Amino acid sequence: MTDTYYEDLHVGDRFGGTRYAVPADEMLDFSRKWDPRPIHLDEVAARAAGFDGVIASGAYTTAIFTLLVMQARERAGNHAVIAVLGVKNQMPNPVRGGDVLAFDAEIVAKRESRSRPTAGVVTTHGRLTNQHGDVVFDSETVTLVARRPPSR
Amino acid sequence: MTDTYYEDLHVGDRFGGTRYAVPADEMLDFSRKWDPRPIHLDEVAARAAGFDGVIASGAYTTAIFTLLVMQARERAGNHAVIAVLGVKNQMPNPVRGGDVLAFDAEIVAKRESRSRPTAGVVTTHGRLTNQHGDVVFDSETVTLVARRPPSR
Repeated sequence: MTDTYYEDLHVGDRFGGTRYAVPADEMLDFSRKWDPRPIHLDEVAARAAGFDGVIASGAYTTAIFTLLVMQARERAGNHAVIAVLGVKNQMPNPVRGGDVLAFDAEIVAKRESRSRPTAGVVTTHGRLTNQHGDVVFDSETVTLVARRPPSR
Repeated sequence: MTDTYYEDLHVGDRFGGTRYAVPADEMLDFSRKWDPRPIHLDEVAARAAGFDGVIASGAYTTAIFTLLVMQARERAGNHAVIAVLGVKNQMPNPVRGGDVLAFDAEIVAKRESRSRPTAGVVTTHGRLTNQHGDVVFDSETVTLVARRPPSR
């Protein structure tokens, strides 16, 4: 797919449809390396904390989100992103081993860049939803996207 | 270390001092798995995009941040975090293989929870700074922290 530029993106555009099945062993390996807290590793500790078993590290869920965004854009045309200006993430429900997470996103705002006439600022609302329909990752990402280069 | 509760945390409190040396091969392995874009894997593509060589995936930097927060809290006393309510992240400068990242944080706000009398809401500003003094990760995290249980 060719890149999609600022001009190609419209408020209300949706993309997504990519999925990730969470292997319990991979989830635990990630926790051991990057976030070895009891609720991310130990069944008893997780239940004592009020969860229905071990839950994923938010960093692991962030990695899955990153992968599913990239795979969805490969299908729909990569946005010509110059820089990620900011991210706001919420994790309203936990991720568990065996979950199947689905990604979907919508462009919610766009505006020209005051400082960079060759780019625009695009705000995208992305989510991961599990097999029960619970949102487990809710993200607003503000990116600087290149405008289409002038044709010669 | 014992846990630190809402009552133990004060605006202006600082913690940190943990560090992570970024192995180039680990950084590339992470990109291959979670964010296989050319700027995260290919020297030529990264330079063409205006970077001074391959840069880390933001998901990898998020994982390092998660680890350094946890290690710093192990030293200073874990916050009795019930839930992470929200995160705002910015990545103002890229991370490169060989960088040494240092974590520091400051508590910037606290308030009682309207809905949960046994907890309070704490906002923490955390940063990763590289060996050149450039901030590579800037995060505001809002957490729900347990109040100290009443003594019997």
